[in-house]
Amino acid sequence: MEYPSQLVERAVEEIAKLPGIGKKTALRLVLHLLKQPKAFTTELSISLEELREKIKYCKTCHIIADTEECTCQNAYRDTSIVCVVEDTPDVLAIRNTGQYNGLFHVLGGRISPMDGIGPENVNIDSLVNRLKNDDQIKEVILALSGTMEGDTTSFYISKLLKELDIKVTTIARGIPVGGELEFADEITLGRSISKRTLFNQEG
Amino acid sequence: MEYPSQLVERAVEEIAKLPGIGKKTALRLVLHLLKQPKAFTTELSISLEELREKIKYCKTCHIIADTEECTCQNAYRDTSIVCVVEDTPDVLAIRNTGQYNGLFHVLGGRISPMDGIGPENVNIDSLVNRLKNDDQIKEVILALSGTMEGDTTSFYISKLLKELDIKVTTIARGIPVGGELEFADEITLGRSISKRTLFNQEG
Repeated sequence: MEYPSQLVERAVEEIAKLPGIGKKTALRLVLHLLKQPKAFTTELSISLEELREKIKYCKTCHIIADTEECTCQNAYRDTSIVCVVEDTPDVLAIRNTGQYNGLFHVLGGRISPMDGIGPENVNIDSLVNRLKNDDQIKEVILALSGTMEGDTTSFYISKLLKELDIKVTTIARGIPVGGELEFADEITLGRSISKRTLFNQEG
Repeated sequence: MEYPSQLVERAVEEIAKLPGIGKKTALRLVLHLLKQPKAFTTELSISLEELREKIKYCKTCHIIADTEECTCQNAYRDTSIVCVVEDTPDVLAIRNTGQYNGLFHVLGGRISPMDGIGPENVNIDSLVNRLKNDDQIKEVILALSGTMEGDTTSFYISKLLKELDIKVTTIARGIPVGGELEFADEITLGRSISKRTLFNQEG
């Protein structure tokens, strides 16, 4: 596409590098910015710069935070249980359920030999150290995605934790709430039968 | 949603002000930026700042440009014809067809009394002055959207141009290429019949 201005072209190309945004959407955003007061763009770009410049990762749970000590150890949390997740959005999703008030541990990825990501590239060592040094923690929930990489990572972690006196659990896999049986894949359906729960235990 | 960091929250809120981007998408973009090198974010925010700070509008055709004299008067263009459009994306869309190599005039909107936009809020005066001062221009194509506001604007401009010795045309309305007749609305279909063209004239 021939752009009317090099400034527009450059901005479109930078925006279109973001995931899920093509050049047409980028152009629409650029034209929107041009119609807004200058302060709008200034606020936006300052917020992005400051985000990238000042963001920290909590040195205990590796969650994105404003300081190196996040609020993960807050008094209102159940400090006897740690939920291991792949990334920060998973923390937000689990918190939003209102069903969990324990601690978190963000791996920052999952073991994926195909992509060259080994156990040393995710925060597994720091999880083991954390569990060794914190007597309060009695249970680890593995809440990784139900993919091959997620399962591999769960298996690797569970093996490492065998020597510690800690209960290792994983989130339930099964038919989603509101899901139709006929559209479920065989593995999920089979697992939901073999791992069936007592009816009155359901939430 | 409870964000893990105020920096993240602020960036999400700024991004979510953009049209078509909700808070979930904004959060995904923020987390993407955090995984990229710092230079990625710097480039992005500088391009936006420079865009907003330095952009100009051509004083002749009002198209977005790097200078106040855009390339609209380039020698390769047919300077006897001006296409009047609502906004810059329309210029790009028409240029991309390869069917038009004349000049453009960007109104910067359309007359819409409901939104308090009168003829004085769009670049109609400058169009009339341009046509009065440029003897070369023999035809004006009104390429505005097929809405009530677009039609009102076309009508208003055509009335103003009556006194000038200029041919005023408008883009053809009809069934889109590849469009099925049974799904077309009655007005479009009726118009496509009353404004039918000779078969061998079709492009």
